[in-house]
Amino acid sequence: MMSNLLTSSRATLISAALTAVVASSSLAQTAPAAKDIAEAQPKPSYGEVIKASPAGDWRPIAAERTLYLDLASGGRVVIELHPEIAPNHVANILALAKEGWYDGSAIVRSHDNYVAQWGDATESKPVKTAKRKLAGEFTTPVGERFEFTRLPDADGYAPEVGFSHGFATGRDPKAGTAWLAHCYGTLGVGRGNTTDSGDGTSLYVVTGHAPRHLDRNITTVGRVVHGIQHLSALPRGTGNLGFYEKPSERVPIKSIRIAADVPKAEQLSIKVLRTDSATFTRAVEALRNRGGDWFKVPAGYIELCNVQVAVRVE
Amino acid sequence: MMSNLLTSSRATLISAALTAVVASSSLAQTAPAAKDIAEAQPKPSYGEVIKASPAGDWRPIAAERTLYLDLASGGRVVIELHPEIAPNHVANILALAKEGWYDGSAIVRSHDNYVAQWGDATESKPVKTAKRKLAGEFTTPVGERFEFTRLPDADGYAPEVGFSHGFATGRDPKAGTAWLAHCYGTLGVGRGNTTDSGDGTSLYVVTGHAPRHLDRNITTVGRVVHGIQHLSALPRGTGNLGFYEKPSERVPIKSIRIAADVPKAEQLSIKVLRTDSATFTRAVEALRNRGGDWFKVPAGYIELCNVQVAVRVE
Repeated sequence: MMSNLLTSSRATLISAALTAVVASSSLAQTAPAAKDIAEAQPKPSYGEVIKASPAGDWRPIAAERTLYLDLASGGRVVIELHPEIAPNHVANILALAKEGWYDGSAIVRSHDNYVAQWGDATESKPVKTAKRKLAGEFTTPVGERFEFTRLPDADGYAPEVGFSHGFATGRDPKAGTAWLAHCYGTLGVGRGNTTDSGDGTSLYVVTGHAPRHLDRNITTVGRVVHGIQHLSALPRGTGNLGFYEKPSERVPIKSIRIAADVPKAEQLSIKVLRTDSATFTRAVEALRNRGGDWFKVPAGYIELCNVQVAVRVE
Repeated sequence: MMSNLLTSSRATLISAALTAVVASSSLAQTAPAAKDIAEAQPKPSYGEVIKASPAGDWRPIAAERTLYLDLASGGRVVIELHPEIAPNHVANILALAKEGWYDGSAIVRSHDNYVAQWGDATESKPVKTAKRKLAGEFTTPVGERFEFTRLPDADGYAPEVGFSHGFATGRDPKAGTAWLAHCYGTLGVGRGNTTDSGDGTSLYVVTGHAPRHLDRNITTVGRVVHGIQHLSALPRGTGNLGFYEKPSERVPIKSIRIAADVPKAEQLSIKVLRTDSATFTRAVEALRNRGGDWFKVPAGYIELCNVQVAVRVE
């Protein structure tokens, strides 16, 4: 029977009834005991929460800070950059895209359960307008006006975690800094051993279990909002660190363009659920304590990188 | 410059010096502040710890509870089953392998950032010797003699987490139960809505960020110790839940055999680092607080599924 397959998933959950959900603080480190199962109430599933969301809880992603990574083979990866995190690196990546620097580059590394990474395999391509040296922006000073919806669930890698404009974010209130967490799909800037050696000519996307130990050690700038399978399902490199050993194994990149520079008719209409919305709070609770017929023990907790930020491609 | 690429990884770290490491308890939820950076001492890297390990800290995996999943296309995935977790399901999976039930089955689902799953796509294959109905073993009663090396780092999904015979494990000391955590590479038993609907004819491996909310909701039985890229890099299914839409997209499985049933000369010699060894404790600390030239801020924490349990294929 097909019903014998794992029928539950992150994408679709079935629940018994639509009831109001009050998001609860879940700092508890102890998951609920078996006796709590019977107390679990039917509640809306994640899918039902998303379906019931008002249009105002969604925002279009800004074409000026969206990248289209088009593989020569035809796949498109859509990346949104964060408006305030790592502003110098975001500006440099946009400059590199504008001057066409990424066009004809290649994915040079596919490291299982870690990252896909691209750049200029020949290491000789001249940079025209972008900067070649930038101070690392591993964390960024953020002021009072920084948009941040804190997740109440405890996290071992950061004093505070939550979401800013749809991006999984760490925050240190004492230091007054924030950074994008290394979750599945996060875009970061490759660097060497010195903190100023990353300029955006080498970029990577997390394609495995969140390597959160990289947080605050490297500059993070955005996340994949569409088409990540074109990176995550690539053959793994057999060289050290997952680099492709033969040039013929590299995956050619046709171009990386800023969405705003593409003719309007060719632009994708993508909306992201506002992470400062009531729908998002309900969606997180639906993931934290899953209802429906399939789940028997609600987790009572959600880890930052297990939170989905819903995306609609229209 | 190649050095401009992300040169650090889970697999290889470079560190300045080999010094003794004392594993510290890291229950702190607050990661170290920037000022702590200068205090970080050079320490052996994970790779150095593994390299320096005595032979006695490794154990060969037992052929009687190891599966070789051979794809028709030639790739081999090696899976180790846990000796005590879910004993009835482990016995049933071994019975299914012995009767050749999996031979000619197929991977039917590749769900990005979630699971690869296989079974009998025709849903008509008769089971000869194995059981068709088994009570769920979502958790298993464990006694005093259950091997468990507790990780001191706090976890939101379980009262206690650690490692048992090399497997990431959750434990509830009050209930006296344990279960394998859903980390990257964990093998689980697909089921429908009823708790007794999983029998081993549908199995899945986690190929994305750890879906820990599945813990205690489904029977887990083992983990992939070698060749996971043959599952994780498969094209993603475009159907609902990542199922392949067309039969031609399914990935044929030549056979799943118990290693002990394969001629000796064809058996792989695989060793796993003992998770109750001093080397393992040192290795975890090397991952929790990474030294070397590349890392600037040690995390001071490690999340269960970010711990690597080293495997050697000889």
